[in-house]
Amino acid sequence: MKKLINTPESVLADALAGIDAAHPHLKVDHVNRVIYRAEPTRAGKVALISGGGSGHEPLHGGFVGFGMLDAACAGEVFTSPTPDQMQEATKVADSGAGVLHIVKNYTGDVMNFEMAAEMAEAETGVKVASVVVNDDVAVQDSLFTAGRRGVGLTVLLEKIVGAAAEEGQDLAAVTALAHRVNDSGRSMGMALTSCTVPAAGKPTFDLPDDMMEIGVGIHGEPGRHREKLADAASIAKQLVDPILSDMDFTGSAAIVMLNGMGGTPQIELYIMYNEVAKLLEAAGITVARNLVGDYITSLDMAGCSVTILKADEEMVNLWDAPVNTAGLRWGV
Amino acid sequence: MKKLINTPESVLADALAGIDAAHPHLKVDHVNRVIYRAEPTRAGKVALISGGGSGHEPLHGGFVGFGMLDAACAGEVFTSPTPDQMQEATKVADSGAGVLHIVKNYTGDVMNFEMAAEMAEAETGVKVASVVVNDDVAVQDSLFTAGRRGVGLTVLLEKIVGAAAEEGQDLAAVTALAHRVNDSGRSMGMALTSCTVPAAGKPTFDLPDDMMEIGVGIHGEPGRHREKLADAASIAKQLVDPILSDMDFTGSAAIVMLNGMGGTPQIELYIMYNEVAKLLEAAGITVARNLVGDYITSLDMAGCSVTILKADEEMVNLWDAPVNTAGLRWGV
Repeated sequence: MKKLINTPESVLADALAGIDAAHPHLKVDHVNRVIYRAEPTRAGKVALISGGGSGHEPLHGGFVGFGMLDAACAGEVFTSPTPDQMQEATKVADSGAGVLHIVKNYTGDVMNFEMAAEMAEAETGVKVASVVVNDDVAVQDSLFTAGRRGVGLTVLLEKIVGAAAEEGQDLAAVTALAHRVNDSGRSMGMALTSCTVPAAGKPTFDLPDDMMEIGVGIHGEPGRHREKLADAASIAKQLVDPILSDMDFTGSAAIVMLNGMGGTPQIELYIMYNEVAKLLEAAGITVARNLVGDYITSLDMAGCSVTILKADEEMVNLWDAPVNTAGLRWGV
Repeated sequence: MKKLINTPESVLADALAGIDAAHPHLKVDHVNRVIYRAEPTRAGKVALISGGGSGHEPLHGGFVGFGMLDAACAGEVFTSPTPDQMQEATKVADSGAGVLHIVKNYTGDVMNFEMAAEMAEAETGVKVASVVVNDDVAVQDSLFTAGRRGVGLTVLLEKIVGAAAEEGQDLAAVTALAHRVNDSGRSMGMALTSCTVPAAGKPTFDLPDDMMEIGVGIHGEPGRHREKLADAASIAKQLVDPILSDMDFTGSAAIVMLNGMGGTPQIELYIMYNEVAKLLEAAGITVARNLVGDYITSLDMAGCSVTILKADEEMVNLWDAPVNTAGLRWGV
């Protein structure tokens, strides 16, 4: 295993220390492993909280800041944070206007966020709503999931709903928007290589030198099938077609993300984006906004994913609103 | 070779098409392989041009835009652009206030930019100045270099000098500032793995599973030495110490970049940044600003580099000025 780490046991603590050192707009609770905005939540603003296993950076800590999340709970690599972490984040971030939990659909995350919501409500009376993101069209159930996995759409949802909360929309409105975004977007990913969890010390799965995995999950969970390596155009088609078959995007404007899995350089992501853009144009979909880069990763996995969100005018306007996080920044 | 490409021959053309499709603020000349701002250079503004071999994305095309470069010439992977490309960029970007060529110190780039400057001056009378960036303390001469290689400081220089040009400073002032930034910063990198040039189809060099290369160049050029894999703290020391021995940073404010080489995930970069920040604190250096992420890469190489710029107040103010590029964006 070749990694820039001190020890497998200290990966999370050391990475949180680095995030803390690098970003003055963030505050890190190293005991509870929660990343907050340095500025407390403004009175009357709904707080947005997310979290999940580490190893997907910049998700979620890199999306804490003005215009996106108020706090993110960091679990060990590929392991759900505990209900205690989530409860702590919920209590600290709440300013009285309530809290939205943004939860990727993995059994552990869903269960722990539910428990945290109940505990926080019982203890302090904070109002908690939640949205479970389940955008991955690759597989119906999976290794860690009942139903579809939550992947790239989480990034777009955190941005759009974060802007709505910043505007002062109330908990009911923010929650309704979150559900609408989740209903309007789909993703699919692929891998050229496995990832290696530091504590395991060896690749999560074996993938021969001439093979790729189509529909892979962000923890290296199996996808739809394996096949021989193909060119960028064929891979793009294998990611975009299942998305377009799953939902009718015809004639829509879209926000599109071409996401790298962590081990793939930008030059390849642009090559993939070019192929995706051609397919969307042929399908009559107008790309209103896009992201090309590493936004939700799987440690050192080589590969990429495509997320397409059918975006109405409100979503595009919220997308354009100012944001100031480590992972997305504009307008400030 | 596992890459998201169509063919090794089409890598550059396909990536430029992707950059063109993704970024409305850019205009791509696909014949000459030059990336421009979509808006022509404002009258009276000095134009900044850079360029070099591809495979280092986001450098340089990802730094074209308001507040940084006016144009970037893209060579084939790890190959200098031609004088014709540079001449074309120089002529098109000039608004009458002159052009600064920002050149990384590699023999081919330096020679070609010199030739382009002469040709452009002879043909259209444009005034051309240049700065050769040579910040890499790892080795004195190298495979492709007389003198030190130009690496990460290029990113910081393009940002700071870009802001000065945007402010309306004239060619002499912008050029003097560029030289001052180059004189005030140093870098050093390391690799856990080789990179693979698509046209070669195999790793540029062999690095056994338990070894790393200290002082590696951004094309996989040999560094200072190889040794057994070590922990993040030891690696940080091996990158920071040679920089601090080379220049006196004591008591200074610094702009620091912890850069990923392309195949290293963010969680590891934050672990490395934490170690670097501790060393700088111990050395009495205040980090005024920092970047953690992939800014000057070597295709899919796993590894990182550290750049430290001794920054005076003017440089920090120019750093904070608005910038709107694919790779760096704030304030707009």
